[in-house]
Amino acid sequence: MVVKVYSPHCASTKRVMVCLIEKEVEFETIPLDVIKGEHKDPQYLKLQPFGGIPVIEDGDYTLYESRAIMRYYAEKYRSQGVELLGKTIEERGLVEQWLEVEAQNFNPPASDLAIHILFPFIIGNNPDPKVIEESEAKLVNVLNIYEERLSKNKYLAGDFFSLVDISHLPFIDYIVNHMRKDYLIKDRKYVSAWWDDISNRPSWTKVLELYTAPILLLK
Amino acid sequence: MVVKVYSPHCASTKRVMVCLIEKEVEFETIPLDVIKGEHKDPQYLKLQPFGGIPVIEDGDYTLYESRAIMRYYAEKYRSQGVELLGKTIEERGLVEQWLEVEAQNFNPPASDLAIHILFPFIIGNNPDPKVIEESEAKLVNVLNIYEERLSKNKYLAGDFFSLVDISHLPFIDYIVNHMRKDYLIKDRKYVSAWWDDISNRPSWTKVLELYTAPILLLK
Repeated sequence: MVVKVYSPHCASTKRVMVCLIEKEVEFETIPLDVIKGEHKDPQYLKLQPFGGIPVIEDGDYTLYESRAIMRYYAEKYRSQGVELLGKTIEERGLVEQWLEVEAQNFNPPASDLAIHILFPFIIGNNPDPKVIEESEAKLVNVLNIYEERLSKNKYLAGDFFSLVDISHLPFIDYIVNHMRKDYLIKDRKYVSAWWDDISNRPSWTKVLELYTAPILLLK
Repeated sequence: MVVKVYSPHCASTKRVMVCLIEKEVEFETIPLDVIKGEHKDPQYLKLQPFGGIPVIEDGDYTLYESRAIMRYYAEKYRSQGVELLGKTIEERGLVEQWLEVEAQNFNPPASDLAIHILFPFIIGNNPDPKVIEESEAKLVNVLNIYEERLSKNKYLAGDFFSLVDISHLPFIDYIVNHMRKDYLIKDRKYVSAWWDDISNRPSWTKVLELYTAPILLLK
């Protein structure tokens, strides 16, 4: 059974596809035109009642929320592909902790920056310089803590690659390659080395090759 | 080894304590005066560099982010106390999905409402009626989707109690018992029945009995 992944161009969907590639799980993608508002169509809302992206269908099983989908496949195929949850329960605890940090501390300002700089049509082509400034200041705080953490550990959850690192890829890519804010990453020695490492993984370069266009993020 | 739980009065800490009680894990609490800013003290920042609440210490193991801590104990004591992650990998996937919905869709407006109505000193005693109005509108949307879900399933993740339900307790308690917005819950038949069920669990009533004061939330 091939996994169906909706809306492959969106940033949060890329998390899921990188995870599936790392776990050696076959998938096919189903396009969704979010600019036309297809994520608000009644048929799509039956799959994802909040109108968020992405959704997967795996036989009769439907799941949404990118980080939940990643956890599901990392658990289901524990012994296949790359281990993404850590080896012990304590390592998994740290994966969960840093995945929450990504979702609660890193992603909100990164997402606000992307919306106001890259996709202002989402907010009526009315980007707010104050939001941009405040979001960047919040990101600086987060990245300073990452710098300290990465000076002692190769990856955020510890000395092992995990869902945490995958979850950061789409928005750091926006920051480095699309927003002209690469100094946020490059000026930090350990964050920069970590980014070079994770962004050169074949799973990520493949996803970027297949779905380059940075299209709108809806969360 | 007794688990140490920091800052028991805060809403997000209550999630962790309910989880520990349901899993029959012994714990002791360590007070933290967030009004005095003790969560920004250098000693605390060594445990939680973002200054967030709660943190646990379990021997040499330290963990923060309430939902990560809950996942850790639900996994570590899988065969002890109440099962909180579902029985199968598919059920756990749904627990993860709805836990993300709680964190991403429910909690931000619920937290904004709490700050602007209950704890305006956090924002310089300057509550914003527009934020209150918009947050309530967002909550209405979320609760309408919950109503539909709960008309078909006893709990949010399915017909089993889980971390998802625990995670909603502290902020629905604020809404119902402290903000005079109980109509948001009571006017929805299935949401109301679900709330009556989960808020009457001995784990929750015990936590409320021990730590009644609704003190500030820092996330």
